[in-house]
Amino acid sequence: MAGKFESIEKCLEKNLPEDELKEVKRILYGKPCSILEFSQDITEESNAKKVELAGYKIHAGPEQLRKPRTVRIGAVQHKIVLSTTAPVAEQLEAIHSRIGEIVKIASQCGVNVICFQEAWNMPFCFCTREKYPWVEFAQSAEDGPTTKICQQWAKQYNMVIVSSILEREESHRDVLWNTSVVISNTGNVIGKTRKNHIPRVGDFNESTYYMEGNLGHPVFETQFGRIGINICYGRHHPLNWYMLGVNQAEIVFNPSATVGDLSEPMWPIEARCAAIANNYFVVGINRVGTETFENEFTSGDGKPAHNDFGHFYGSSYVAAPDASRTPGLSRLSDGLLVTEVDLNLCRQVKDKWGFQATSRLDMYAEELSNAVKPDYKPHVIREGDKNQGQ
Amino acid sequence: MAGKFESIEKCLEKNLPEDELKEVKRILYGKPCSILEFSQDITEESNAKKVELAGYKIHAGPEQLRKPRTVRIGAVQHKIVLSTTAPVAEQLEAIHSRIGEIVKIASQCGVNVICFQEAWNMPFCFCTREKYPWVEFAQSAEDGPTTKICQQWAKQYNMVIVSSILEREESHRDVLWNTSVVISNTGNVIGKTRKNHIPRVGDFNESTYYMEGNLGHPVFETQFGRIGINICYGRHHPLNWYMLGVNQAEIVFNPSATVGDLSEPMWPIEARCAAIANNYFVVGINRVGTETFENEFTSGDGKPAHNDFGHFYGSSYVAAPDASRTPGLSRLSDGLLVTEVDLNLCRQVKDKWGFQATSRLDMYAEELSNAVKPDYKPHVIREGDKNQGQ
Repeated sequence: MAGKFESIEKCLEKNLPEDELKEVKRILYGKPCSILEFSQDITEESNAKKVELAGYKIHAGPEQLRKPRTVRIGAVQHKIVLSTTAPVAEQLEAIHSRIGEIVKIASQCGVNVICFQEAWNMPFCFCTREKYPWVEFAQSAEDGPTTKICQQWAKQYNMVIVSSILEREESHRDVLWNTSVVISNTGNVIGKTRKNHIPRVGDFNESTYYMEGNLGHPVFETQFGRIGINICYGRHHPLNWYMLGVNQAEIVFNPSATVGDLSEPMWPIEARCAAIANNYFVVGINRVGTETFENEFTSGDGKPAHNDFGHFYGSSYVAAPDASRTPGLSRLSDGLLVTEVDLNLCRQVKDKWGFQATSRLDMYAEELSNAVKPDYKPHVIREGDKNQGQ
Repeated sequence: MAGKFESIEKCLEKNLPEDELKEVKRILYGKPCSILEFSQDITEESNAKKVELAGYKIHAGPEQLRKPRTVRIGAVQHKIVLSTTAPVAEQLEAIHSRIGEIVKIASQCGVNVICFQEAWNMPFCFCTREKYPWVEFAQSAEDGPTTKICQQWAKQYNMVIVSSILEREESHRDVLWNTSVVISNTGNVIGKTRKNHIPRVGDFNESTYYMEGNLGHPVFETQFGRIGINICYGRHHPLNWYMLGVNQAEIVFNPSATVGDLSEPMWPIEARCAAIANNYFVVGINRVGTETFENEFTSGDGKPAHNDFGHFYGSSYVAAPDASRTPGLSRLSDGLLVTEVDLNLCRQVKDKWGFQATSRLDMYAEELSNAVKPDYKPHVIREGDKNQGQ
């Protein structure tokens, strides 16, 4: 069933009576999104290219002094195109070509900012622990072939692109990183950030390949809002989200690659909690499909050696600061999610809920600074303790 | 419909085909809980007392060197008993008596640690902004009438009790606080903690009555595990959860009072995200019912004056560190949720997922310490910036 189940939303829509569906959606999804319609040409094009195309609008209230700041956000989830045994250059070229098709559709949908999944131009090979040929996918963030093709698209379509790749940093001793490159709609690279938290769980043997990012929590100012990126496993770390909010992000992308057995019940939770707590939009993007590798590998779970990573369940979605969210893309197929948002919602929710004003950040800065000291004693109170302070 | 809709879980169970229900539950609720059965005597008693009684077990794996540390956690949600116009002493006495019935049922269910909703012994009167008679519900945390009756129950039933009240601190100039008192199963008060984040949203005019808590993030060592408390609005603050994890909590209670229009889509999200990110159990408890007040009040939302706070939607549940959760109690009625957990799961999930080892807390302590400086400049990178660092 899990391998055929398309999405929670489609299942509920099929089975629930209308009045109950409304209540379930209100509680599970918050304020309803409205549908963003596309022309017949576009839907035919996306059908022909086997791209699930979904469009939604998330509204904000009017203000007197600021105009709406409407942005269309594109989120792309896709399968790898060729077999993982094909030559590296061919695999890379095939994925470039496939995403080129989807970016073109996105441009027809009026997308302003688009983000692809984590390590989008390659298979998610880190399960294998093999270095070659996989590290050959690594490139310069500034002028590698993937950045170059993104720069072309960005300029051609007037679109900001967030491109997450395996980076080879030649200027720093050939080190590898898991990196997101932010490309302006002018075609220039604005900058890059790196994955701050590296997993050591299941088949996610990424610490075999690269270390924790060293670029902090930059936010990128673009023509279409201030953008932050929290790569994959960083979504489990509340402080990683938090610092992007402190640095004024309005949209945070979470390009990911994660599989059903491990994380699926967490997927609807963490991006939304981050959007709520930090008053920004979160765009959760997950890889889709099952990737098979030539040589078998084990997963440190006592089970027999095998050749695939498990099912990447897609389900990409956008979460809003007001606790609403879009439905997810399919668990099974390539897709493009287009979400029109009004960035003014971020500050409107800040003003309504007051999480930032009531944050007591000075208290937490002090408590965390104490907590990292080698002789930190957790603040535990036992029965009979006279002194209740720390 | 919202006023009649009992719960998401009951709706899904009624309407979905079995195989699809299984998938929906897997994605929305994680690893299934098993049912904790009670004797017919107990279920008859709870039916007679009009208490929805639900029992679940959340399992952990076996270990070689530690025995299972099985604890039964009780979560109580209840309506006020008398009209808010009844004399304060009578209202207080009626709620004490009602909760006495529920605690007795809990003891028959083998509950070891029980928690009641926020300000459980009074109506949630802060919508009114009237000081009297409401502040007369305030009591000493150490030896007020509510603490005294909890001490009796605790000793009689060998149960740890978390009792959240409006505290009057006579020894510090009669100041009011929103406080949780932790009472040992010996009947002694172990200590107390206070609400760290005070809302200014909707009818939650609590800042009219009391200030932000000044007791930090203590965790209470009990015979049944290490307990933390994050009171109500504190659940929107990731760092409030975080510090309780740093201080070694295994179960964190979130006694709350929150209404449907404001927060219902957040309710299934935040407690679970906290449980996942911090590797502890979270027990989310929400008040239930609609409370009406004699004098009309406005809500700062342009709508006419009215006499009620809106519907407190109950839906109390337990979230586990492995991303599973129990179903929620009803949105409509008094209830007792009994959840048997193995506290060993907390460290098992830490070891599996590695969020603590990969937390980079030193980096965040430094970044937050910088962020609170008056001259902090958010780390924003613009097109053409040569220096990408902060």
